[in-house]
Amino acid sequence: MKAEMISVGTELLLGQIIDTNSQFLARLCAELGIDLYFETTVGDNPTRLQQVINQASQRSDLVILIGGLGPTADDLTKQVMATELNCQLVTDQIAQDKINHFYQESTKEKPHDADRMAQYLAGSQVFPNDQGFAVGMLKETKKTAYLVLPGPPAELQPMVTNYAQTALAQLNGSQRLIKSKVMRFFGIGEPALEDRLQVLIQAQTTPTLATYAKQNEITLRLTATGSDPDQVDAMLQALSQQVLDLAGSYFYGFGDQNSLPAVVVAGLRQHQLTVTAAESLTGGLFQSQLTGISHASDVFPGGFVTYAPRAKEALVGVASDIIAKNGVVSEPTAIAMALGAQRVLQTDLALSFTGVAGPAALEGHPAGFFWVGLALPTGKVVTKAVTYPKSRNEVRDYAVKVGLKLIYDYLKDISNK
Amino acid sequence: MKAEMISVGTELLLGQIIDTNSQFLARLCAELGIDLYFETTVGDNPTRLQQVINQASQRSDLVILIGGLGPTADDLTKQVMATELNCQLVTDQIAQDKINHFYQESTKEKPHDADRMAQYLAGSQVFPNDQGFAVGMLKETKKTAYLVLPGPPAELQPMVTNYAQTALAQLNGSQRLIKSKVMRFFGIGEPALEDRLQVLIQAQTTPTLATYAKQNEITLRLTATGSDPDQVDAMLQALSQQVLDLAGSYFYGFGDQNSLPAVVVAGLRQHQLTVTAAESLTGGLFQSQLTGISHASDVFPGGFVTYAPRAKEALVGVASDIIAKNGVVSEPTAIAMALGAQRVLQTDLALSFTGVAGPAALEGHPAGFFWVGLALPTGKVVTKAVTYPKSRNEVRDYAVKVGLKLIYDYLKDISNK
Repeated sequence: MKAEMISVGTELLLGQIIDTNSQFLARLCAELGIDLYFETTVGDNPTRLQQVINQASQRSDLVILIGGLGPTADDLTKQVMATELNCQLVTDQIAQDKINHFYQESTKEKPHDADRMAQYLAGSQVFPNDQGFAVGMLKETKKTAYLVLPGPPAELQPMVTNYAQTALAQLNGSQRLIKSKVMRFFGIGEPALEDRLQVLIQAQTTPTLATYAKQNEITLRLTATGSDPDQVDAMLQALSQQVLDLAGSYFYGFGDQNSLPAVVVAGLRQHQLTVTAAESLTGGLFQSQLTGISHASDVFPGGFVTYAPRAKEALVGVASDIIAKNGVVSEPTAIAMALGAQRVLQTDLALSFTGVAGPAALEGHPAGFFWVGLALPTGKVVTKAVTYPKSRNEVRDYAVKVGLKLIYDYLKDISNK
Repeated sequence: MKAEMISVGTELLLGQIIDTNSQFLARLCAELGIDLYFETTVGDNPTRLQQVINQASQRSDLVILIGGLGPTADDLTKQVMATELNCQLVTDQIAQDKINHFYQESTKEKPHDADRMAQYLAGSQVFPNDQGFAVGMLKETKKTAYLVLPGPPAELQPMVTNYAQTALAQLNGSQRLIKSKVMRFFGIGEPALEDRLQVLIQAQTTPTLATYAKQNEITLRLTATGSDPDQVDAMLQALSQQVLDLAGSYFYGFGDQNSLPAVVVAGLRQHQLTVTAAESLTGGLFQSQLTGISHASDVFPGGFVTYAPRAKEALVGVASDIIAKNGVVSEPTAIAMALGAQRVLQTDLALSFTGVAGPAALEGHPAGFFWVGLALPTGKVVTKAVTYPKSRNEVRDYAVKVGLKLIYDYLKDISNK
């Protein structure tokens, strides 16, 4: 199936906003085996929009139209489509009721053209907008199908995930249903993960597997199609278990919106454990990421940024001869920092980070070299030395993830006991 | 002048990378008064690429082509252009020498088609690639001009800023030269800043002014065209002074890549002052942002994340009756935290943050309410109460910027004395 995408909005052509919808939908097309050949952005101009739609109708089986569904005079996508396809616009009563109800309850004035957001092209399959008012739709004609979606990513993405992707899969001749499961990995590169999963990747028909690298992590997306929801779930469950058997030591969680800090805060809360940190290299980044998660206060009383040697001594009691003998960037210093932080704040766990963020080398260590320590409730300290020769802020981000993964692995370990 | 943009790359159509070049170039076109009517993305397919170029040639005066200039077999942009325009590809000797030299010195094997990166369409104005090998070019034909740029943003952006934007301004019938100056503001909204600058915005011909809002800050871009470089600089200088007269209290720095933490670290180094912090609300985010800047260790020995009340008492000696009497989110607590941090680490300055990140209210304060304190060398503490009713992480980010701006204003104050 040949597809193309048309994004509508003068704000895109003026560079006022960045287009993230294209990537989201392009990935979906790739997963569904739909060949996306063109993406076009056009302004809120009816003549040029009509030209672009007309051209797309001639060369593509599927046209995905994004944006221009709002309540203002320059939102024109459905109006131009209605003319082009010689088709009526009709009102979706559920969407209309939602709009009426909102403006009855609200102190905001109802925009003049608000009701247009409830309209769809006659004969379409209508998709509800759970995060806004403008409905989406799939309109099929003899030659071409048109998927029409709202522009704001917060409205578009749930509409696609909850409604439109199944409709697209059916359109593409797949079976009735499509579901995805996202698995998240840290500590392994994309090629190495693909190597480990090679037997699954080579065998893939349904479910399929696709890896994406992002900010020092790998996301693996499993996508299954079928007719029976239970069967689709079972396929995803079976494949994710196979993935865990092959690469489970790098896995840390499921879900598109998940993150290592979120998984770690949830795990600590579940085990009723507290954590603190003494951060040198990372300068507060670990604690900042942890406290970015709601309910972090249940597991984290506070901590230390021990940037200068004198702060390591004054705040967490690292003996000056440990630093004099071993250097700041050393395993003994990492151990003393973790134990010191744990002692001062009386927590169950404590992380320490010491290393060379760069750009310059330090104590004979290259930029990107660091130690991470995790003090356990027993008083034992797990340590790890890593060299990650990237930019200053990538090194810091990677080190925080190494620390979070140490906590994750410890929690997994005690869960299994 | 009617323009359109063509991005070339199958990786874009598969959603493997996000397109940031389009926004960068769209903004430039807007600044130069070039009307951008279409953006098209097409894969590494010579037939479809040729179709798109051909269509663009017919309807646009300027076609900006991005990507497909690399050394692999699927990099085809120049080859397709050469056929379409019936024009030779010739070698730029400077670029060729750079490629030869790199692979003589390197242990990397030279890709088979590496030399193609030094080729340009005969008759073009060639733009050097300061961050890579593939040259850019402006090729003018009787009807249409073609600007050809490399795909990686780290190569494209400096090529445009240093070479191509002046060529584009000339092409668009402007005078000989175009220069921009970026001014950065915090603590004022975009509409309010535009209000203050209204007299300048209404009068604008050259230089022009454009505001952009991003992550709780406003960027103002002044762009001047002219024939004499000194005169253009003088115009920008005069306008930026007028802007400072109208909105100087919100200004904190010049430059596209600048940031509040960078300006503050530079200012502290210049005045040889040190800073620490006791962070509750922000959980380490201030210290993390500060240590993200090179040379932060010159001004920052370390600090505290005092998340729980017991950490406020244990780490920076906030008396328990201050919290009992006033609450955690209060001016007296903010003052005690700042003075305590300053005392323990013996720094010149110390920041404190205490407030309600949300989503829930705390001590009767709504989510988004916070106090920031800045302890000065005199022992005085400057405080500020803010309500910023946004999401948890926006509140935290905003609070850090409020703290940084307090330091910036203090440094400006002592500079003026």
